[in-house]
Amino acid sequence: MSRPIITLLTDFGLRDAYVGTMKGVILARAPEVELVDLTHDVAPQSVAEARFLLTASAPYFPAGTIHVAVVDPGVGSDRDILAVRSRDQLFLAPDNGLLSDQIRAASETRRVIQSRFFAPRVSRTFHGRDIFAPLAAALASGVGLEELGPPAHSPQLVSWPDVKRSAGALEGEILYVDRFGNLITNICEEDCGRAKSVSIEGRCLGPPRESYVEAAPDALLAIVGSFGYLEVAMRGGHAARELRIGVGAKVVVSLGEPGLFMKPTAAGPNRP
Amino acid sequence: MSRPIITLLTDFGLRDAYVGTMKGVILARAPEVELVDLTHDVAPQSVAEARFLLTASAPYFPAGTIHVAVVDPGVGSDRDILAVRSRDQLFLAPDNGLLSDQIRAASETRRVIQSRFFAPRVSRTFHGRDIFAPLAAALASGVGLEELGPPAHSPQLVSWPDVKRSAGALEGEILYVDRFGNLITNICEEDCGRAKSVSIEGRCLGPPRESYVEAAPDALLAIVGSFGYLEVAMRGGHAARELRIGVGAKVVVSLGEPGLFMKPTAAGPNRP
Amino acid sequence: MSRPIITLLTDFGLRDAYVGTMKGVILARAPEVELVDLTHDVAPQSVAEARFLLTASAPYFPAGTIHVAVVDPGVGSDRDILAVRSRDQLFLAPDNGLLSDQIRAASETRRVIQSRFFAPRVSRTFHGRDIFAPLAAALASGVGLEELGPPAHSPQLVSWPDVKRSAGALEGEILYVDRFGNLITNICEEDCGRAKSVSIEGRCLGPPRESYVEAAPDALLAIVGSFGYLEVAMRGGHAARELRIGVGAKVVVSLGEPGLFMKPTAAGPNRP
Repeated sequence: MSRPIITLLTDFGLRDAYVGTMKGVILARAPEVELVDLTHDVAPQSVAEARFLLTASAPYFPAGTIHVAVVDPGVGSDRDILAVRSRDQLFLAPDNGLLSDQIRAASETRRVIQSRFFAPRVSRTFHGRDIFAPLAAALASGVGLEELGPPAHSPQLVSWPDVKRSAGALEGEILYVDRFGNLITNICEEDCGRAKSVSIEGRCLGPPRESYVEAAPDALLAIVGSFGYLEVAMRGGHAARELRIGVGAKVVVSLGEPGLFMKPTAAGPNRP
Repeated sequence: MSRPIITLLTDFGLRDAYVGTMKGVILARAPEVELVDLTHDVAPQSVAEARFLLTASAPYFPAGTIHVAVVDPGVGSDRDILAVRSRDQLFLAPDNGLLSDQIRAASETRRVIQSRFFAPRVSRTFHGRDIFAPLAAALASGVGLEELGPPAHSPQLVSWPDVKRSAGALEGEILYVDRFGNLITNICEEDCGRAKSVSIEGRCLGPPRESYVEAAPDALLAIVGSFGYLEVAMRGGHAARELRIGVGAKVVVSLGEPGLFMKPTAAGPNRP
Repeated sequence: MSRPIITLLTDFGLRDAYVGTMKGVILARAPEVELVDLTHDVAPQSVAEARFLLTASAPYFPAGTIHVAVVDPGVGSDRDILAVRSRDQLFLAPDNGLLSDQIRAASETRRVIQSRFFAPRVSRTFHGRDIFAPLAAALASGVGLEELGPPAHSPQLVSWPDVKRSAGALEGEILYVDRFGNLITNICEEDCGRAKSVSIEGRCLGPPRESYVEAAPDALLAIVGSFGYLEVAMRGGHAARELRIGVGAKVVVSLGEPGLFMKPTAAGPNRP
């Protein structure tokens, strides 16, 4: 049997040994797990960023994976901790909206109250080490979700902003900016089939491209990225710095008439 | 039997593949170990920072863990390398004070002289790869500490600064600043039981809080943090930047009369 | 039998969960592998930096290791992907020169065309996740290189700049600058045996030293570093910032007459 996987996603950074300490706690209790870092460089206390990254990466892990996400501005308050089973994976996080996407597809959402699974001594400020790490180790060791606490009846749920739709256009917005300066929007691939042209901050980028190299060097371009959403990128550059924009900026997609302005290559299979 | 754990703590950063190379050396010699990064972002050559982080995180690892700490301004000089058994864990580091806390509690402290456990060729500048990694693999493979060299008779030992105590107050200082800008002091939890008020740089923070959310947004606060020491934090912000201070800055705790000004909640168990 | 090792080297950074996602894909298909990060902080799209780091670190891994290097400015174009067997290790990377050093020593170099080993759906922008990760998992599971595609007949090959040699001097150049500001040159250890003096940017550093501590604090020095090449360093400081130079800067080594100016210690074995 393969080893249970525990992924960690936090805003703890890698400078202070907070993450290494969590791993010590987990391995002391569940020595056979496989630990994977999703990221620890979420902007401090940015629940939205954590949620975006967890939702984007969790589906690539096998069934049974335990995802632990600790971005927790309310640490030490009376906010709840949630344990969720969603699409055959398990998720642990504070009840602050981080798990909204998983909860909507969940078969089981529990409020963790059984402190016997916590560390013997729980600090005021580091529940990642004292609560989340021991809980993850317990789940990896076979403890059932139902042992952790009762069903959660009204977990905090937040939504991504809607795409505004009119006859000839879509208006979306930037959800995330990655390390390369790519601006990831909320406009999904299916909505790009009729895209005639994309514009952002008054700059027209033409239709979505099939690859970065279709654009001229140093040119801005639109492309359906690896998250399955439209992105604005800059070939060989950093689109966010070039445009001086970030999360929340608006993007407009002008639509061609169905079947008329359809860009032939965009209809092909999504293969290189 | 579970796999032996080797932790790595260095100032090598993650940009240059130095750490990855150490892992290659270890896995080539001891394929079954579990590698855990404590941190590699210690400020270059800061032995004090390395020592703080190792002392804070090692206790969370299981017995038998091998901790390798390489912050080594004297690499290539005749400084010794120490191998220490302390509280059922093993430690390898240069003899530069980094292991002071472990040595004080050690059952065995050895000076490594047996170069047969080193790489066949040792570079002038990268003993992490050529000496520490092979030594860690040897220990993980069952080599005994006594095979590495003779007892170390006068290892370098450094101390944390003392807290100054007077009738009505304690004066401590900042030992470490973490990624969130939290200022960690040398005043331990036990000393905070009678704390009436904490002040730093002429700003009064009131008594230590039970959680960040007790403070107003963007307010500075004092709290006993996860290291078990008093910390100065800023709710939703970065205390070190706000106060423009760092390691070595002074913190004063005014004490109430015993039993009189005792803050009720501070006496409760350290639970959320 | 020990677990197959897969190393990852990319320019993806650690902020965006791209690397974590690749690990999920690998572990879903080959749960028993050992994953090691070489680095993910290669300067965006710097194939030269990736090549330098891979060539420097791969030899420290055991036979059978699978190295995956994804620095891929041409992602989505028709650039090939190469699978190489070189010195008993396997390498996967885009055909952009990154694997030049490995290909020159290769026993087998293949162009990957068998998309049945890819993810069912391949994005336009993230072949690390959709092609390289599944390919690495396939190799770790025992798929042979010959199953991936035909021999590559003209892979892209780039060379490191030559050292210019005259009677009394060598002129080399900086290939890489590490996190400490050390400037790594293309002048190898063997060429330093007769080195009388090293100069860079008009500053004379004297002969190569045996250790950093031979230089005065804050002084620049030359030393044969851990890559086996001459480096320019600054004791307790950052040579690249001090000199305000980087990759491509010239370094001159003045040679003594053979046997006459030979620095005695430099002839000794390379041991501390």
